Amino acid sequence: MGRATNGVGMYEDPLTHLPHKSVQEFARGQVIYSPANPAASLYLVILGRVKVSTAERDGSETVARIVCKEGLFGESALIGTSNNTETAVALDNVTLMGWSRGEIELQIERDPRLGVALSQYLVRECLELQDRMESMVVHRTPERVMLALIQLASNAGSMTPEGATRVASLTHQTIAEYVGTSREIVTFQLNRLRKLGMIKYSRKFMDIDVPRVREALRTPHTPHRVQSMAG
Amino acid sequence: MGRATNGVGMYEDPLTHLPHKSVQEFARGQVIYSPANPAASLYLVILGRVKVSTAERDGSETVARIVCKEGLFGESALIGTSNNTETAVALDNVTLMGWSRGEIELQIERDPRLGVALSQYLVRECLELQDRMESMVVHRTPERVMLALIQLASNAGSMTPEGATRVASLTHQTIAEYVGTSREIVTFQLNRLRKLGMIKYSRKFMDIDVPRVREALRTPHTPHRVQSMAG
Repeated sequence: MGRATNGVGMYEDPLTHLPHKSVQEFARGQVIYSPANPAASLYLVILGRVKVSTAERDGSETVARIVCKEGLFGESALIGTSNNTETAVALDNVTLMGWSRGEIELQIERDPRLGVALSQYLVRECLELQDRMESMVVHRTPERVMLALIQLASNAGSMTPEGATRVASLTHQTIAEYVGTSREIVTFQLNRLRKLGMIKYSRKFMDIDVPRVREALRTPHTPHRVQSMAG
Repeated sequence: MGRATNGVGMYEDPLTHLPHKSVQEFARGQVIYSPANPAASLYLVILGRVKVSTAERDGSETVARIVCKEGLFGESALIGTSNNTETAVALDNVTLMGWSRGEIELQIERDPRLGVALSQYLVRECLELQDRMESMVVHRTPERVMLALIQLASNAGSMTPEGATRVASLTHQTIAEYVGTSREIVTFQLNRLRKLGMIKYSRKFMDIDVPRVREALRTPHTPHRVQSMAG
């Protein structure tokens, strides 16, 4: 997040307008909320990463968001949806701050700039979802795995002395949920990229050679449609 | 849109907090904004329908939103993105009201409930995008075409004496952009649904038998992954 400049101007950062609260800690793998126990707060990630996904009826497939430091999640608490299907799980040991719908509304009354900042944050979130949706239509799975690596590197990476971007490891299952494909396909594609020297991974880290992945994505390809007419 | 109740409570309607402005009219087919001339306003649809889509580099594929009466679009005006790739086109003769970023921010300072209402509206938009993204991963194209018809009927339909839901006609190209597939596939699937008696269409209208389409969607199917491992 962070206050940012762009071509036209600055946008507000909700963080500077949210009142300080005591932090909550969740251990790696712990469920923060789930359909059985829906989000009652808008959460801010102080430390660690959180996976937010939607349970499908058959439990087989899902598309996840990975929320990093300074990211917000649990936005549906603001509208109090009762048919909530979202689950948030700590991917690392995480530290969060949370505000109820009532607290957020009260704070906007006190400091209307929080309303501006939250709206702007949510517009950016909509644009990001729109981009990911487009990517699902336009790109084949191997390209989507590469795009996911670039996105993860830009959200949560640190540079290694060799010039790669280091990301704390994610399971292949989590990457699959982010891409919207199966674990098997992700394992296959990551092996391929590793053999090509674009990524290296250990149990703790994945080092991503972002310029090489970008270069590979620029290689021309034939646009395609994901399904045949027989569907 | 509209003020709505749900399991937990009510949410605010931005319409009741937006100051009245003089209306703008666009003829069917007219471009409201485009990458060459990006949105400088948040727009409210008073009458008619608007298609909002994102231009792809190769221009071949896109995923569109269809914004109906009382819907908002041009949200990116609130963050002043300069790399705007969105295009909005009038699908009917449309009447709009528009507010600049400055006007919205000023109004939120005056009436902080607009900040609450806009945030809630945008959270619902994010959830809808998330749903559509999931649908792309989980469902095959024929099901996605049927889901699109149900969504279009629930957003903008009126009942016929026969109990079908009548929607002002949309081109197969527009439905294809909404679904995220090709025009050819949409034509093929609509013909199939017409032969099955689930829809009827003329040049002006499409009548959708929503209960029968829902019933067809409930028929069990094997979950599938959209692409093979070879990608």
